[in-house]
Amino acid sequence: MTYTPTIILVSPQMGENIGAGARAMKNFGATDLRIVTPRDGWPNPKAEAMAVGAVDIIHNAKVYKSLGEAVADLEYLYATTAQSRAMNKKCVSLKNLLAQDVGARRVGVMFGRESSGLTNEEISYANEIITIDTSEFSSLNIAQAVGLVCYELFKMPLDKANTTNSIELCTKGELKYFFDHLFTELDKTKLFRDEDRSVYMRQNIMNIFNRVDKLSHTEVQALRGVVAALASNGLQEN
Amino acid sequence: MTYTPTIILVSPQMGENIGAGARAMKNFGATDLRIVTPRDGWPNPKAEAMAVGAVDIIHNAKVYKSLGEAVADLEYLYATTAQSRAMNKKCVSLKNLLAQDVGARRVGVMFGRESSGLTNEEISYANEIITIDTSEFSSLNIAQAVGLVCYELFKMPLDKANTTNSIELCTKGELKYFFDHLFTELDKTKLFRDEDRSVYMRQNIMNIFNRVDKLSHTEVQALRGVVAALASNGLQEN
Repeated sequence: MTYTPTIILVSPQMGENIGAGARAMKNFGATDLRIVTPRDGWPNPKAEAMAVGAVDIIHNAKVYKSLGEAVADLEYLYATTAQSRAMNKKCVSLKNLLAQDVGARRVGVMFGRESSGLTNEEISYANEIITIDTSEFSSLNIAQAVGLVCYELFKMPLDKANTTNSIELCTKGELKYFFDHLFTELDKTKLFRDEDRSVYMRQNIMNIFNRVDKLSHTEVQALRGVVAALASNGLQEN
Repeated sequence: MTYTPTIILVSPQMGENIGAGARAMKNFGATDLRIVTPRDGWPNPKAEAMAVGAVDIIHNAKVYKSLGEAVADLEYLYATTAQSRAMNKKCVSLKNLLAQDVGARRVGVMFGRESSGLTNEEISYANEIITIDTSEFSSLNIAQAVGLVCYELFKMPLDKANTTNSIELCTKGELKYFFDHLFTELDKTKLFRDEDRSVYMRQNIMNIFNRVDKLSHTEVQALRGVVAALASNGLQEN
């Protein structure tokens, strides 16, 4: 297993950028491209044209209707943002990324739409944020950003990349089951009665659990048990 | 003085790449763009369109008819190549670039045409070659390459960048005067009588002197003195 990231483009707008991103991925050994709701549909001839020798990555790219599906099998997910958001989430500068060992085997990095980046709701899926230090002019082309991230991770020595991990980390998909379960139960409560408030609370909750360091498969099962226990106890009280 | 490199694009073909390169330069604090014989002339609307917020770099870019003019005021010049050439020239991997201290204040990095990179003759102007480690698929987009180089140099701590150098290094322009002088003298000799051979010899000679570590202004003057002395001595012998 090598540490080549899965690249997730969230609602990319220009096919040219998807193609240029794929080419940069291939330059640095990354091959798994996932695209969530591309603006101009899929397949996209402009993406193929810009990919040049990396057209295989375009042809093998998977397209998803939701971010949740796109990241379901990943163990660790980074979000990239232009500037740090007012979010209680760990941030790492790209230049320090290699110093980290997240202990995960299936790592993804997601990039937002050209016009406005990732929404806070999308960022709430991430374990951590990658920022790229720039000059005052921080408007990075998305394909450049993909290239820089893949370039940095390609530097990782193979012995470090071949991380053998005795703990089975939870996937984003398992975590989603937990959230679905939790939110279904919370929908029945006063806490989620107000629509605006419940949207905000969902994000907060997702943010909290996505930040747990090395949350394992077993631990998520335990959390689901906790929710189930609380919910049934509440029912008994009524 | 900061260590923001001058970027030299040699015979770039697509305006889009010039614009995307300018944008990446600005992301990482580089502003001095020089273009040698752009294929589609200058100004180029496609370059402006792709530059987005970095259109000032496009407007301030300088265009040259020859590489020699474009680099005349620089003290240290890097060439970027996809794979290491069979040239006796120092190579540094981009990831190790920051560990170097070339002791120069005016540093340039040149990038070749999209189709075929830099010629050996162009590379002979460089002090050193930068290679970018890639996967087997080494065909890097030129704007991506510009972005990666500027990104790496932008990491340099300012205290290291503010290098105060007591030695006045020779510029590429001074070195060119020396070469002109030397080659004019050599043209008169048997060594340069064969046209093919003389082209090869010129490159070799340029390569040798461009590789001298921290060649100073004073030293180039000394070299010119040596050539003048040898030449006039030869004349006296005839």
